[in-house]
Amino acid sequence: MSLALDLARQGLYSTHPNPRVGALVVQGENIVGRGAHLFAGEAHAEVIALAEAGAAARGATVYVTLEPCSHRGRTGPCADALMAAGVGRVVVAMQDPNPLVAGQGIARLRAAGIPVDLGCGEAESRALNPGYLQRMEKGRPWVRLKQAISLDGAVALANGQSQWLTGTLARSDVQKERARVSAIMVGVGTVLADNPRLAPRLETPLRRYPVKVILDTHLQTPTDAALFSSPGAVWIGHGPEVSTAKRSQLQKAGAELLAVPLDGTRLDILELLRLLAGKQINEVLVEAGPTLASALFAAKWVDEWLVYMAPLLLGQGAQAAVQAGPFARLAEAPRWQSRSFELLDNDLKWTLRPQEN
Amino acid sequence: MSLALDLARQGLYSTHPNPRVGALVVQGENIVGRGAHLFAGEAHAEVIALAEAGAAARGATVYVTLEPCSHRGRTGPCADALMAAGVGRVVVAMQDPNPLVAGQGIARLRAAGIPVDLGCGEAESRALNPGYLQRMEKGRPWVRLKQAISLDGAVALANGQSQWLTGTLARSDVQKERARVSAIMVGVGTVLADNPRLAPRLETPLRRYPVKVILDTHLQTPTDAALFSSPGAVWIGHGPEVSTAKRSQLQKAGAELLAVPLDGTRLDILELLRLLAGKQINEVLVEAGPTLASALFAAKWVDEWLVYMAPLLLGQGAQAAVQAGPFARLAEAPRWQSRSFELLDNDLKWTLRPQEN
Repeated sequence: MSLALDLARQGLYSTHPNPRVGALVVQGENIVGRGAHLFAGEAHAEVIALAEAGAAARGATVYVTLEPCSHRGRTGPCADALMAAGVGRVVVAMQDPNPLVAGQGIARLRAAGIPVDLGCGEAESRALNPGYLQRMEKGRPWVRLKQAISLDGAVALANGQSQWLTGTLARSDVQKERARVSAIMVGVGTVLADNPRLAPRLETPLRRYPVKVILDTHLQTPTDAALFSSPGAVWIGHGPEVSTAKRSQLQKAGAELLAVPLDGTRLDILELLRLLAGKQINEVLVEAGPTLASALFAAKWVDEWLVYMAPLLLGQGAQAAVQAGPFARLAEAPRWQSRSFELLDNDLKWTLRPQEN
Repeated sequence: MSLALDLARQGLYSTHPNPRVGALVVQGENIVGRGAHLFAGEAHAEVIALAEAGAAARGATVYVTLEPCSHRGRTGPCADALMAAGVGRVVVAMQDPNPLVAGQGIARLRAAGIPVDLGCGEAESRALNPGYLQRMEKGRPWVRLKQAISLDGAVALANGQSQWLTGTLARSDVQKERARVSAIMVGVGTVLADNPRLAPRLETPLRRYPVKVILDTHLQTPTDAALFSSPGAVWIGHGPEVSTAKRSQLQKAGAELLAVPLDGTRLDILELLRLLAGKQINEVLVEAGPTLASALFAAKWVDEWLVYMAPLLLGQGAQAAVQAGPFARLAEAPRWQSRSFELLDNDLKWTLRPQEN
């Protein structure tokens, strides 16, 4: 299963909106087939692995990191392909929460007399697909908030200077974090201040680029913003009161406009997240300034906080990464759980999740 | 040499004021003697290793992590012991900067016809004895500033609440950091606020406890402070204007008083550090509140910053660990170099050194 998970990781940057899935066909002690789903509309992992195995699939054990599908989507049902190949046993890391599958793939195999073991490697498989699973299970994407901060928790000096807190290694790591997600989200404030391209820059071009989502209540995004000329679609979430002229200018510039209800004076984030889930967005990387970050934290919509910390002090008057408090008791202060950490040259990459209560 | 360094580490908690030193006697391919200096006044590493080797030391190669001494202190000169044992070759990680040695140990061996190789493992040997080396080379101790801080760089809420930011594993790690140093230093503000014992608490009692040094310009330390009843001597650094009555009360409580000149209205830290070096203090662990920490940082007397970071936000109004800035340009913000880091349960231990300019 560990090898099947490695195969699944090959699709990290490209399977959107599908999950990352790997499959392995083992005959006796020999691996006779390997498959990874790489791109939506192309073959599923099981089908690729079975094709490599050929006749050797008969009676073999198949390891697959997600329940084989039972429905005909852009490709045929994998459960049927496994049955047709005459495999002897299937080991499945986890059930697919997609309502089109949801246990039916496993039921179909068992009904055909093929024993199915469920649950080996489930935690690792879940970790590979947090966005797909949350979209299927809760109807919203997985929100990963990324910030580059100083040792005293600030993102910029009082005058806004923030380039660069972290070193080149941390900054190139951000490109990988961008490449894996379905969408990169920023507030319009960031667009106006930094005019970012927001597309991942990696050594090799990607087959698929994440959507760039701008939170822009009043449609202030300039039509000549750099993100219009970088790879990947542009979606702008806006409030109800915007001028038709501005709408059509931005549409002409290439943006897709998403009308989002307000929550007070700001866009209703949950409504936007639901909208994104409806458009098959799995993981969202939010590259947030303090305002957006604070709003997301306050509403508890942050599933994962990706902190790149540079060992420097921005000192008095610097802009805090997140507005929190004041707190009267330590027990009120929000805490996170460490998930992983890594030193990137001189900077720290620290992945945190909200503490479960 | 790597094994000799491991032996030297056995003395981490106990060799004060001496350096940590290990020695290995190798005859052909066999280790025939091992030695670690453990306690001042007791045998040096070379002598212990030679005793274990006995007649097998003749013609052997001796690995020692610091230059063998050439002077008669509380024990005889090790260089002479090596000559008397008839060793064939000596490999020395680094020269001893102690003016009583300073190359004379090596010269003595070479004059006796014993080849000496110098420099293998020097970096590791230096890392084992930062305090001893800095005291010998610069006349001041090695200052390691320890702080437990939040993700937003604060040490306490506005109301002073700070217990506990970090978890039990981080807090027990602090006990090991206390055990290794010659002295633990705090400002009197910490004594008045927290009444700490300041003695390391480890599972097994220590042979030697660090000195507790209080910076107390006006002699405000209460005579019933908890640190008077915990193991280890109490030294109080005070300013020139203090009452004779308070002096004698504190002396009766067990404190040794050190008169320190003022630098403005505060104790002159450099003078105090020189005084401590004169009293054979190698490493100092400063458990500093924001005031003392900021003074030490401003004067650039921090050799190492030991940060225990808890993933929580203390938010607005919290007490910053260090007062810095405001800065107009990012290039003015003080930066550190990552030396090492470790995850202790949910908290991060991050060792930083000032960036070399």
